[in-house]
Parts: sequence; structure tokens; C-alpha cells
Amino acid sequence: MTESRPATPGTTRPGGRTAKVRRAVLDATLDALADTGFHALNMDRIAAGAGVGKTTVYRRWGSPVGLVTDLLHDMAEQSLPASDTGSLPGDLRANAELVRDTLVDPRMGAVFRAVIAAAACDEECARALADFYRTRLAEWAPVVTRGEARGEIPAGTDPVELLRAVSAPLYYRFAVTREELDAAVAERAVTAALAAARDGVFVRE
Amino acid sequence: MTESRPATPGTTRPGGRTAKVRRAVLDATLDALADTGFHALNMDRIAAGAGVGKTTVYRRWGSPVGLVTDLLHDMAEQSLPASDTGSLPGDLRANAELVRDTLVDPRMGAVFRAVIAAAACDEECARALADFYRTRLAEWAPVVTRGEARGEIPAGTDPVELLRAVSAPLYYRFAVTREELDAAVAERAVTAALAAARDGVFVRE
Repeated sequence: MTESRPATPGTTRPGGRTAKVRRAVLDATLDALADTGFHALNMDRIAAGAGVGKTTVYRRWGSPVGLVTDLLHDMAEQSLPASDTGSLPGDLRANAELVRDTLVDPRMGAVFRAVIAAAACDEECARALADFYRTRLAEWAPVVTRGEARGEIPAGTDPVELLRAVSAPLYYRFAVTREELDAAVAERAVTAALAAARDGVFVRE
Repeated sequence: MTESRPATPGTTRPGGRTAKVRRAVLDATLDALADTGFHALNMDRIAAGAGVGKTTVYRRWGSPVGLVTDLLHDMAEQSLPASDTGSLPGDLRANAELVRDTLVDPRMGAVFRAVIAAAACDEECARALADFYRTRLAEWAPVVTRGEARGEIPAGTDPVELLRAVSAPLYYRFAVTREELDAAVAERAVTAALAAARDGVFVRE
């Protein structure tokens, strides 16, 4: 094992003991973030929760920031594949509902609140969170290119910009104004983004 | 002085010593949030920075959360009046530019990052942040009603929902995906929100 590379934990022997330890530690990190948030993250408690030696956790992840950034990389790798309903409104609706389901879920909502707080306090966490959304947005981009090919939106529409427009009203309410995220909010985010897209607002210059 | 009401600090004798102390303490709180963020907020250092006795700060604000919530109430009271350029696109553009200027300003950007982190960690801060945006959105609502009266958007458009659509893409990038907030982002937020509004997406059901 290459224990000398703490910056890329768990990269050796996937499926082996390293992978199992990583899984247990990241699951315990997710639980801790959901229960107590970023600032109460305690390496010793996470080691205990994961059934892993403290030394291993300290050596491999270094700090709570190391745990959160690795968890975000893991979440990016595991994010659900984009849907393919056959229409752009259908796919964007599926996307908005997935975002809403995640944010209103008590456990995952608490995790996202915690990682957004972590990103506000720490630059390394901020970069990992940005990476997570970059991965997620890139994964859903084909939904928009398929819609463009079907003539549902103007040629040259920036896929990621349209996807951001769908997510933004949901995250704005969740993280900033703290307003309720009901189903109508998700639906309106989709219709608003589509209206703008059809109007050519997201066409690359 | 009614020192027995720490929940509503500084409400007695506006303009007098109470108001001066409050101003000095809130200015010091803003500085501290900009410099070190919410979790490093230190009551003793804020008292020293404000030139106010520690006992006064502890008795009147109680905790860092008390300071942040009072600062947010003060920011809501002091937020700039809505513009009146004579056209809805002009007013929404002024609003988007005001939001962008605030978030890209190194000092105020750091303050907003800190209060968003505080809101993610503490329910009282979250309520105060929600109040701040409720006040700010209500203040700008007449911009939309004037545009509706001029026939620029369909009758029955929800003013606050349209204003949220302008702010959301800016805050989403700022607080969640950490992407750059250039002038084109603000302009696109306005054109996208207007396209959706003209399409009737924000008409109340």
C-alpha cells in the first residue's frame, strides 16, 4: 500500500482492504455530517464509528477537511446517471426532482447543508464541492445535447448553463433564503429554464 | 435601559448611547466575519474592537449567534432602496448588478459567505438570514408591479418569484458551485428571468 500519498486516499487495491476501510470511513463521515455538521466532525469518533483504527484515519485523511473532500469525490463518482425520458422537459424534470428529493431528504439535506458550510469555511472543501458539481453537471449535459438534436431548443445552447438554471432556484432557497422546496418550485425551475432556453438565452456567444 | 431583553438588543433610546454602542459592536462584528468567518467569532475581541466593555457585549448579545442575527437585522434595515429606471429590464439589471457587486466585493463577499455558513450551522442564524432576504425581496417587489402596470410582463406575475429568479443563478454560483460571477452571468440571469416572466411562468395560480 502507498500510505505515503494521503492526498489521494484509498486509491490502491480497489475492492481490497483499502477500499473497505475507505467505504466504512466515508459512511461514518456521512453519518457524522448528517448528525452534527462539519464543525463538530471528530476524527476519533469517525474512526470508532467505522470500526477502523484512529491511526489509519489520521494517516490517510489527515483532518476533517480531508474526510469531507474525499467524501465529495466519492459522492461525485457515485452520483446517479442522467435520465433519458425521450424529451428535454422530461429529463430536466427528472433532474429537478432528483435535486429536490436530495435536498428535502432529512439525512442528505443535512449532509449538503454541512458540505456547503464546510465550503464556506475552507478553500479545499470549496474546491471539492465545485468538483462535485462540475462532475454532476457534465454527467447531465447529454440530456441537453439530445434535446438540441431533437430541435427542442436552439442550436448552440450551452448544456451546463441550462442545467445550472434548473438547479439554481432550488439551491438558492435551500442554502440562502431557506424557503420551502415544494414540488411546484421544482416544476417552475424547469419551465422557467426551458422558456429562457427556447428564447436563446443560453446560446453560446 | 431595558437590559433584560437581550433578544431585541439596542431597541431603547435610538440615537443615544445604546444606538452608538450597537453601531460600534455591529461594525466590529462585520469586520470579524469578513476577516475570520463565523466560527472564529470571538466576543472578547469584538468588544475590544468596538471599544465597548465585554460585559455589555455578553449581556446584550449573549453569543456569536446573537451578534450575527442582530447584524442581519441591521443589514436588512439598511439595505439600499430599489431602483426606478423606468423599465423592468433596467430595474432588474440594477438589482442583479447590486447582488453581483456585493458578492464579488472581497469584504462583503466574505461577510455573505460567513452568514451563509452560520445559517447552515445554526437555526437562529438561518431564520435571521431568511428574514434579511424576505425584507430585501419585498423592497424590490414594486419594480415588478410597475413593470406589470406598464404591460412589460403578464398580469398576475408574482413579483418575489421573478426577483428570486434573478438572484438565484448568482447565489448558486457564489455559495454552491463556487463558479466565477462575471458581468455576463448577471446579464444572463436577468434575460433568463425576463424570458420566463414574459412566458407567464411566474403568474400566480
